[in-house]
Amino acid sequence: MTPEEKLEALGYPLEERTSGYPPMAVGKIAGNLLYLSGATPPPRDGAPWDGKVGEVYSVEQGYQAARDVAAVQLMMARSVLGDLGRIKQAVKVLGMVNCVAGFRDTSKVMNGFSDLLYEVLGEKGRHARSAVGMAALPGNVPVEVETIFEIE
Amino acid sequence: MTPEEKLEALGYPLEERTSGYPPMAVGKIAGNLLYLSGATPPPRDGAPWDGKVGEVYSVEQGYQAARDVAAVQLMMARSVLGDLGRIKQAVKVLGMVNCVAGFRDTSKVMNGFSDLLYEVLGEKGRHARSAVGMAALPGNVPVEVETIFEIE
Amino acid sequence: MTPEEKLEALGYPLEERTSGYPPMAVGKIAGNLLYLSGATPPPRDGAPWDGKVGEVYSVEQGYQAARDVAAVQLMMARSVLGDLGRIKQAVKVLGMVNCVAGFRDTSKVMNGFSDLLYEVLGEKGRHARSAVGMAALPGNVPVEVETIFEIE
Repeated sequence: MTPEEKLEALGYPLEERTSGYPPMAVGKIAGNLLYLSGATPPPRDGAPWDGKVGEVYSVEQGYQAARDVAAVQLMMARSVLGDLGRIKQAVKVLGMVNCVAGFRDTSKVMNGFSDLLYEVLGEKGRHARSAVGMAALPGNVPVEVETIFEIE
Repeated sequence: MTPEEKLEALGYPLEERTSGYPPMAVGKIAGNLLYLSGATPPPRDGAPWDGKVGEVYSVEQGYQAARDVAAVQLMMARSVLGDLGRIKQAVKVLGMVNCVAGFRDTSKVMNGFSDLLYEVLGEKGRHARSAVGMAALPGNVPVEVETIFEIE
Repeated sequence: MTPEEKLEALGYPLEERTSGYPPMAVGKIAGNLLYLSGATPPPRDGAPWDGKVGEVYSVEQGYQAARDVAAVQLMMARSVLGDLGRIKQAVKVLGMVNCVAGFRDTSKVMNGFSDLLYEVLGEKGRHARSAVGMAALPGNVPVEVETIFEIE
């Protein structure tokens, strides 16, 4: 199975990702590195994500949001590269959790992201990571993540 | 017009940027990448920036601070490179807004940064970006941004 | 003295660092760049770090935590590279301080990290840096840092 087929089998239909704001790109390539813009979780079952983990959302719900963000980052990578087969490896993930002050479980939330990346890309999906807690994220979503991939 | 001339035409006189603290550099070059240290907005009309967006500052004021930070990052790049003409493209921007918990408009604030970069560098200024909300920034300034450029 | 000898002389016995979670790596190499996962401070005198700077910890205590994190990042680099002599230079440091909202002294805290890196690696340890304030960090530790090194 290709990464695209795995994504679809996991319940994430492929879609094109574009930037509607000229100064910003979905991702930029420099040499063999692809730097993606931060991604946030799309609405789930028609409901936009809106709130902090540890307040509106549980760790389990944050995990799901982070998992969905991983699917979005992969679709963003695909929109830039044309084909996820061009990914040589994941390199670095900065996982940002919108949470209450002093929240302890940012790592558990971000495992949703890391697990999906690993399920879809296998060993190529193994990455260095930080998982940290933010005062705020755009639109008050619970998770935002930015990823660096090495590409062929 | 050169990027330097555009910066000056936009009201930002060129100035040299140095680090007064030996362990830190204004920016470091690795291969074709220039990694800049985070920049904060200089005083405007003699008044230092001091406070959070959504509390002391409006979104519009935050936008102005972010715009000023973009000018500082370009001057930092120039201090490292000698000449902004050596910039091949902007790659990645991490925009950090010092804001109240749950603030929704970090993207609108950071557009100040992105707009100026795009005005000065044109298509070369197009970048991947995250725009996120912090509990605190040095000296309680409202915005800090770090940028990666690809250079010739 | 080698960097390893300097670390030990500064009171940091060498130890191997591994990731117990398959999707994550201690660090990933892409071309000449080593991207490390974020590091947090290990217990000091048997006591785990647990709390925010500006609340539970003073700036001086945060400085010590950040200093300890630098030693951890170097041990992580060594676990990936086998030998700290392979480091050509430090490139970029993202220093994240778990602090109360509006805390002003994130830079002073992060100087603990920067000072140790500079003591151990000398001019090769000079780096670009941001030092910013977070709402939360894993396990409520006061400091987390992620570093990019250029390697031979």
